Parts: sequence; structure tokens; C-alpha cells
Amino acid sequence: MNGFDETGTHMATAQHPSAGLMMSTPLTTQELLKRMRSAWPDSTISTVADETARFSHTVTFAEVAVRAERLAAALSALGVRTGDRVGSLLWNSAAHVELYYAATGLGAVLHTINPRLFADQIEYTIDHAEDRVLVVDATLVGTLTPLLDRLPRVEHVVVVGTPAPEVIGRVTVHAYPDLLEQAPAGFRWPELQEDLGACLCYTSGTTGNPKGVLYTHRSIVLHALIMAGTNGFRLGRHDRALALVPMFHALGWGLPFIVALTGTDLVLPGRHLGPATIATVIEREQVTWAGGVPTLWLDLLRYADAQRDARPVDLSSLRLVLSGGTKVPQPLMAAFEERYGVTVGQGWGMTETLPGATLSLADPDASGEAKRARRELAGQASPFYEFRVVDADGAPLPHDGKSVGEIEVRGPVVAAAYYGAGHTAEKFHDGWLRTGDLGAVTHDGWLDITDRAKDAIKSGGEWISSQDLEAALMRHPAVLEAAVVSVPHERWSERPAAVVATAGDDPSADELRDHLRAHVAGWWIPDEFHFVAELPRNSTGKFDKRTIRDQLRAAREERFS
Amino acid sequence: MNGFDETGTHMATAQHPSAGLMMSTPLTTQELLKRMRSAWPDSTISTVADETARFSHTVTFAEVAVRAERLAAALSALGVRTGDRVGSLLWNSAAHVELYYAATGLGAVLHTINPRLFADQIEYTIDHAEDRVLVVDATLVGTLTPLLDRLPRVEHVVVVGTPAPEVIGRVTVHAYPDLLEQAPAGFRWPELQEDLGACLCYTSGTTGNPKGVLYTHRSIVLHALIMAGTNGFRLGRHDRALALVPMFHALGWGLPFIVALTGTDLVLPGRHLGPATIATVIEREQVTWAGGVPTLWLDLLRYADAQRDARPVDLSSLRLVLSGGTKVPQPLMAAFEERYGVTVGQGWGMTETLPGATLSLADPDASGEAKRARRELAGQASPFYEFRVVDADGAPLPHDGKSVGEIEVRGPVVAAAYYGAGHTAEKFHDGWLRTGDLGAVTHDGWLDITDRAKDAIKSGGEWISSQDLEAALMRHPAVLEAAVVSVPHERWSERPAAVVATAGDDPSADELRDHLRAHVAGWWIPDEFHFVAELPRNSTGKFDKRTIRDQLRAAREERFS
Repeated sequence: MNGFDETGTHMATAQHPSAGLMMSTPLTTQELLKRMRSAWPDSTISTVADETARFSHTVTFAEVAVRAERLAAALSALGVRTGDRVGSLLWNSAAHVELYYAATGLGAVLHTINPRLFADQIEYTIDHAEDRVLVVDATLVGTLTPLLDRLPRVEHVVVVGTPAPEVIGRVTVHAYPDLLEQAPAGFRWPELQEDLGACLCYTSGTTGNPKGVLYTHRSIVLHALIMAGTNGFRLGRHDRALALVPMFHALGWGLPFIVALTGTDLVLPGRHLGPATIATVIEREQVTWAGGVPTLWLDLLRYADAQRDARPVDLSSLRLVLSGGTKVPQPLMAAFEERYGVTVGQGWGMTETLPGATLSLADPDASGEAKRARRELAGQASPFYEFRVVDADGAPLPHDGKSVGEIEVRGPVVAAAYYGAGHTAEKFHDGWLRTGDLGAVTHDGWLDITDRAKDAIKSGGEWISSQDLEAALMRHPAVLEAAVVSVPHERWSERPAAVVATAGDDPSADELRDHLRAHVAGWWIPDEFHFVAELPRNSTGKFDKRTIRDQLRAAREERFS
Repeated sequence: MNGFDETGTHMATAQHPSAGLMMSTPLTTQELLKRMRSAWPDSTISTVADETARFSHTVTFAEVAVRAERLAAALSALGVRTGDRVGSLLWNSAAHVELYYAATGLGAVLHTINPRLFADQIEYTIDHAEDRVLVVDATLVGTLTPLLDRLPRVEHVVVVGTPAPEVIGRVTVHAYPDLLEQAPAGFRWPELQEDLGACLCYTSGTTGNPKGVLYTHRSIVLHALIMAGTNGFRLGRHDRALALVPMFHALGWGLPFIVALTGTDLVLPGRHLGPATIATVIEREQVTWAGGVPTLWLDLLRYADAQRDARPVDLSSLRLVLSGGTKVPQPLMAAFEERYGVTVGQGWGMTETLPGATLSLADPDASGEAKRARRELAGQASPFYEFRVVDADGAPLPHDGKSVGEIEVRGPVVAAAYYGAGHTAEKFHDGWLRTGDLGAVTHDGWLDITDRAKDAIKSGGEWISSQDLEAALMRHPAVLEAAVVSVPHERWSERPAAVVATAGDDPSADELRDHLRAHVAGWWIPDEFHFVAELPRNSTGKFDKRTIRDQLRAAREERFS
């Protein structure tokens, strides 16, 4: 007997005379939670408790299912109803997984907030999403507190971990364990439709405010089914998967939902992402599979290499690393494979498509030169992700691996619009999502991404908006014009460089850095500042960023020659 | 550019205020056909051309996609419209796969007719389905011809292979290659809803007329996604899968649709299922994976064993055999594994659920005794197949692996009703399908099916499992096949009787009794043992217990008359 007995399936399906005669079970996260309990009760989620990684907290899937049900009952008792937004400001932990299932299974929308955003943007997304309840890690209470006065819709804050304050301003604070313990018994999950909004994730695009992607239950379940496929993430019941990708980014690649189908143990790092911690976690938890941005793997590689003569890091349990968020450097792949016997695959995706829209793990045929050539590509399109390449006029180009145009994608796991935004028509084209990436597609569906249509900078897997930086720079009284472009960086893949024209005496780079700190996140601040008399412009009077990039590249090559 | 450009995705999804904002691509077989072409254009389908298996005909997935599009255009030109039924009377061949995609992608319903049914039943299903077009193998024209006069709704017959007659009675005959060649160019696939009926498959129950299961596009696509999962059929791009399971049975286990997701090469046997042919096909085509009923594997094992001293059969390419349709004897599994290095897994399903509702391949944890114990089970419930066990009053029993009752199942790949049948309420119970099987479910979703509700023997008020007795009998080295049925008994109401086929000299009944004492309770031991050359089988290759019971009754009446 359980709270699911009355949900799940309707016998009557016939919508029209030609309809087939199968049960119409909706595809919801409730079905995934059922699966955790009914198929893999003994699989586990381990959360790293401190940065020495000497301690971790482990719960079974069966326990997670029970706790998620209690949490759903508790949220329901707090007044959360179908369609209400519940915000999470949490690191990767079992509690976060419980909230994933509780909030969505209840029919509410889980809004995963990125704690690394600038405070103004955190406030913006909470306000825009109209979150009624926030579930916050104790280490992030300090980030939230100064914002709450300006967020009148927030009624409850639930704190995971200690210390939990009793109250923040006018808002009641609940300690997570107390909330679970006091949850009313006998909760019954409500019937949900599969097109109901389930999760809301804001993407900080190249311009303007963050835009929300509102995933449906159906899209989340289909994504999990696709990624649990033999050509997907390649996770099995035997695996122990370390999810370094934050659960506030595109649902942590969907891993909390995918493991419900694969039975894979999850290992979650909390907020501890340093290479020494990760190395210890891999050793102690016998991690076989790990996913995250290339920067983390570069750090781990350097750390492991440095430890070789002292206390060698034992990565022998690890068989597969899935990397994504930005292009994976070839030397990184080669080093992991040759020095540590670990295969590194890559994937491509956007918040708007969930991750794994392409995967380079699906490359069983290639070997030798062909394999290396395929490794340069972003991966093969996954099932139900349909890609096309269009020229500047929007006309489709052949899939010959050579014809370069803007990549467009469509399918049941692709956003059709942004949440509460009416002004995003330029992102969609004729039923397709415009990815903003330039590239080609091979005859068998492999994507070669060559450039970005716009000039955003992707640093360590995170977007930095060149336009926002330019606007901030131009607020400095001495700055006349500013252009920010991407320069290659070994560790972060890309970093911003600023080119500035001033009215009189040039300010120092340090002065501009100080100025920017008031306007943007610290990690956005450009690594380089170049001062010029005038910025090159193209025929329409806009900054000619291609020329600027070329000039910087030439200067750089001169420097190193 | 292709005929799919206008189908597939709608941007507007919002059905209600809380709806999420993802594209609403319907799950149809069109998406699978697209995938064959866009991801695996070079994968192949090979059809065995004669029983020596020396020749086979190979087409690529890209060619199949083009031919399916031409066939859809041709069927459309013949007047086939959305919801119309198209019948197939075909063996497993590339043409049959083409028809799977053409008919369903066109919006028509593919009715797969079982040529092994009695003529009356073939006629009944064609009449009941109201097939307008029939696609028939040349070898089966003789079966069809005498029936056509009584099937006034059939307008066209398409013949695959030679010789094709020009006309059958009043019905126009089209040769399949001519039809494709003459198809009008520029076909555009229509927009389909995912709850549209796609395939119709009749199940010959134990009583009454065959009953039709009308699969939706959605159910077929979800089944393919589930079976393409890492815990599913375990098919990859590297595999070459021999589909011995007929495509007129529950969509050939869905293999023609599943390979669109996995990229697996298909090897199709046509009508050639003899063990010598199969052995040659495995050798020549380097088959890695094969699926079919246990009888075929028993036959192959016997053949391979017999050839050992002459020309040994090379099964070294084969890594996995999936067996289903009836319980797989343990000695068969052990023999394949020990003598030929082939893993044998089993699955459970019904026409009403499609195959693979449970799978015993998903058993990575177990080893040694635990593995053997799990192998006795029917397999673990697959994702989105929810099972329960109910007692005689329909009340749910615990999933403890011990409480035996009738197994019920529900989910999006489970039939909700029979096609054009109003009298089937007894098959459905409170939103669940009654499987007619007795068994138990473990805490982690493994099914132990102990018997058919109708085959079980109720002796002195207690259940005796005919399947367990059969399995125990087949462990005796001299026993090839065994069936146990119920015979009436004055005192105990029913008692078991065994019918046994042996490899050489029959053992005595006493010897079998002694053998059984080691495996089952004393009161389970059959009262009668009958030795026969061969056990009668029904059209699906299962033991025909009805015939066995009739024969025993006749023998008994003769004896006592």
C-alpha cells in the first residue's frame, strides 16, 4: 500500500475515433520515484559531508522515496499547490534529490536557483518565478538574507543543514529534518498531467535578464529514457556516478531522474569541488562514472599528475568521464585515457534542450584516426533531438559534415518558449530552436560546432555576456567605448578580454577591475585590458569583434614568438 | 529536404495555465523512421533468402527509409487513409519492416496476421479488422486465395516475392517491386497524433475468437525507448540481431522499432527457422544477439550437439540469446553457457503488454547461487511496467517474493481494452490488466511466475505449479521436454499428469518420481507419466496443453470404456 495507489493510469484513452486502445499513463516524475522504490530500493545516494571527503552521508533509494513523500506532505501542508513555484538554493545533495521529486510530484514547479549568480540576478529570478517557498542550504543563508526584504512573495524558508536561524526578517524558517518529521501521515500523490510544468531553470543568456525554461514532466521523463538508453550516458546498475555538474544547472544533466531508470548509485559532492576532494571521493566511493565541465577534469588531472611521486591518486575504479558545457580539449581526453585509463566523452546541450542532445560516447564503430576525428566533434544527435543547419536566410543546408550554418534543434525535450517572456521570438524559427551555435552536421547525425553565432564567452562552462560587460565598462566616466571578446584559455576554455577607448588619460586596469566589481560577478572580470584610440567598426557601425579578436590573436602570437 | 519537413513538432503546447513550455513533438513511428535515416544510415537489414542460408538480401537503414516512403506513397495512392487497416501476411523480412513503417507512418493501422492460425481464424481476423489492403508473401498466396471470396472488404493484394498471380478472384494483385517503382514522387508524411492506433495484433486466447490489441504510436515508441535502455534488450550499434520471433507476434518483440534507436543490424530469417539454417545464419552473418522462443534454442542446441563430431557449429559470434514466450528451462540456459559461451536471458510479456515487460538480463548484481535463484524468475519489471499481486478477492498482496496471487500490470504500454470487443471486462480490474498468470513479486520488482491461472492444478484445495514440475522434470538428463496438466481426480478434485518426450530410452516412471522428490513436495509428484515421441505445440510454439488434456481424456475414456 502506498500513496501512489490511485494515480498513474486511466483506462479510457479514446480521444478520437482512430485512437488506439492502450492505457494512458502520464509520463511524470511520480513514475520515476515509483521506480526508485520498486526496482532499486537498495541503490544509494551518498553526499560528501566535508572537504576532506572522509565522511559522507548515505541513503537508499527506498529511503529517498519515503523522505520525498514526507517532504511532499510537508510542502503541501505549508500551502504549496499545483503550479506553485518552490525555489531551491542548494548544492548537490540527497536532500536536493528529495526536493526534486517532492516538489514536482506534488504538482508544484521546482525552481533551481544558481547561487553563483550575482545577487541582483538571484533576486531577479526569485521575484520573476514568484517562489512561495525556498529551500536553502545553511551555507547560503547569508546570500539569501539581504534579498528577502525585497521578495514579498516568499512565505517560507526551509534550511538544510546547520546552523538554521529561527527566522529571517518576516519569514518563517523551518529546519529540514523537523519539517520531514512533522509531516502529516498518509500523503496521497495527486494525479498530474504530463504537460504540467515541473522544473524551472533560468539561463543567463548573452543579453538582458536571465530567461526561464519551464520543463514539463513529459520532457523530463523522455530525457531520462533517452539518456538511460544504450547509446546514452552509459549508466548501469553497477555504476557509481559522481555528479559534479550542479543540480541548479539544467537539472544536473537530469542525473537525479536518469538513475531512477538505471539503478545507478549517485555520489554527490555537496559544495566540495576541489581536485583533492574529488580525488578522495573517487577513491573512497569507488566512483566508476563522473560528469562535469572540463575545468574540473583539468584541475583533477593536474592534481593527480602532481601527486604522482608523493601519494599517487587511485583513479582505477573510474571508467568513464562525461564532460560537457563547453568543448573538451583533445589533450585532456588523451591524458586521461593514456595516463589513467579513463575514457572521456563529451556531450552538447543547452538549458533549453537539457544536456545530452548530442553525445560523443556513441562512437562504437570508429577506431584509430576515424575515432580521433569523431572526438573533435560535439557528438551524435541523441534520439528525438532533430537537428538542422540553416544559412543566413534560414534555408536548410545539407547534412554533409561541411556546410556550416546556424544549428537549429527541435523535439519533445526542446523549449518552445521562455517562461513569462513575450519577447523571445528571435530564439525560435519556424518550429525550431535557434541554438546560436554555428556548425555542420554529418550524414549520420554528428555535430561539428565551429563557432557561436553571437559573441558570448563561455568560461568554465558558464556564460559571460560580453554585452553586459561592455555596458558596465562604459559606465566608468573615463571610458568612451568598450568591446569585450573571448580569448582562448587553457583552463577555463575561454576568458573575456576587454578593449577600451577612453576620453583622456587611460585609467589603470586595476581601476577598471574595481569599477566592474560593483556591477558583475567577480569571475566575469576580464583577464586582459587593452587600451586603444578607437575601436574598429563594421559597415553598420557596430564594433567589429572579428577584427578585434584577430588583432588580439596577432598580438598574443607576437608575444609568445 | 525530405517528406518529414513539415511534421513533428508544434511550438504551442499550453493546454492549461500550469502547462510547461516545451515543444509537443508527438511520439510516432515517423520519429523512429527519421532516426533510422539520420543516425544509422549505414546499418543494415539482411533477409535470409533460402533455407541453405547461403544467400541473403541486404538493405541499409537509409534504403529502408526511402523504400518505406515510396511504399507509403503507393498505399496512399491505393486509397489507404488515416485509420484504415492494412493487413500483412508475411514472414520476417526487410519488406515487412518497410511495411511496418509505411503503413503506420501514413496513419493507417498495420494488422499483422499470423499465417500459422487455422484458416477460419485468419479469415476471422481479416474480416474483424476490416483490412482494405493485404500485403502477402508469395508462399502464402495459397493460404489466402480460398478465403478472399468471403472477405468483401479487401480491395487490393500486394505480393512480396515470386510468383505473384495477376489477380486473385475479384481482387487486383500488385507485385511489391512494381508498386514501389510506380509510387508517386514527393510524398509528404501526414501529421499524426500519438494516441492514433498504429498496429493491430490478435491474440489467440484459450477460449473464443482471437482478440485484437490496438497499439498506439505512443505505446510503440515508449516500448522501443524502454527496450533500448541499458537494462533493456542490451542491443548496441555493434550488434547484429537475429530476430527469430515472428513479426506477426506482438510486433516481433518490437525489434523493427527498437533498432531505430540502437542502430543494431537486423538479420531476418524469412520463413526458414530450422536449426541447420539458423546455425548457418549465425555463422555467416556473425550474429551477436538472437531472440526467440525456447523451442528454437532447444532445437539449435540439439543440432549443435549432434554436429560436434562432424562439422562443429561455430556460435562464437553469439554473446546473448533472449528467450521468451514461455519459461526457459534451466538446463537449456546452462548448456548454452557452458558449452557455447552464450548467455541466455529470458523475458516475460503478453500481446497485451508487448514483450519485455520483465527481463532477466537486468541481473548485474547476482552471482553464484543468487544468480541461479534469479534465473529461475521471469525477470525484473521493466520501467513503466507496474506490477501487483492480488488474492482471489482482488486485494493486493505484499511484494515479498512469497505471496502468490494473480499478477496484474498497468502502464503506458499495456492494453486498456480489446479492439471492437465489448465483452472483455473480466480481463481488466480496477485500472489494471489481469495477466492470467499466478506468481509473486520480490521487493525489488522481480517476477516469479508460478503458473498460468488456467494451467495451475488445484489438488485438495492447494495449488500445484505445472511449470515448476515441468522445469524439475526437464532437469532429468533423459528428459527433453515435459508438460504437466491437470487430470480430474475423485478425491483430490485434480491431480497432475506428466507427458514426457525423451532423448533416447525412456526412464521408468519410478525413476522420474525419485528424481522429482529432490525438487518438489511429495504431494506434487504426478500420478501419471506418459511417454511420447513429441509434445503437441500450438501456433506460437508453446506446449498445446489443451490438446494434451484432450488426448489424456480420450485415452482415459478408452481405457475405462
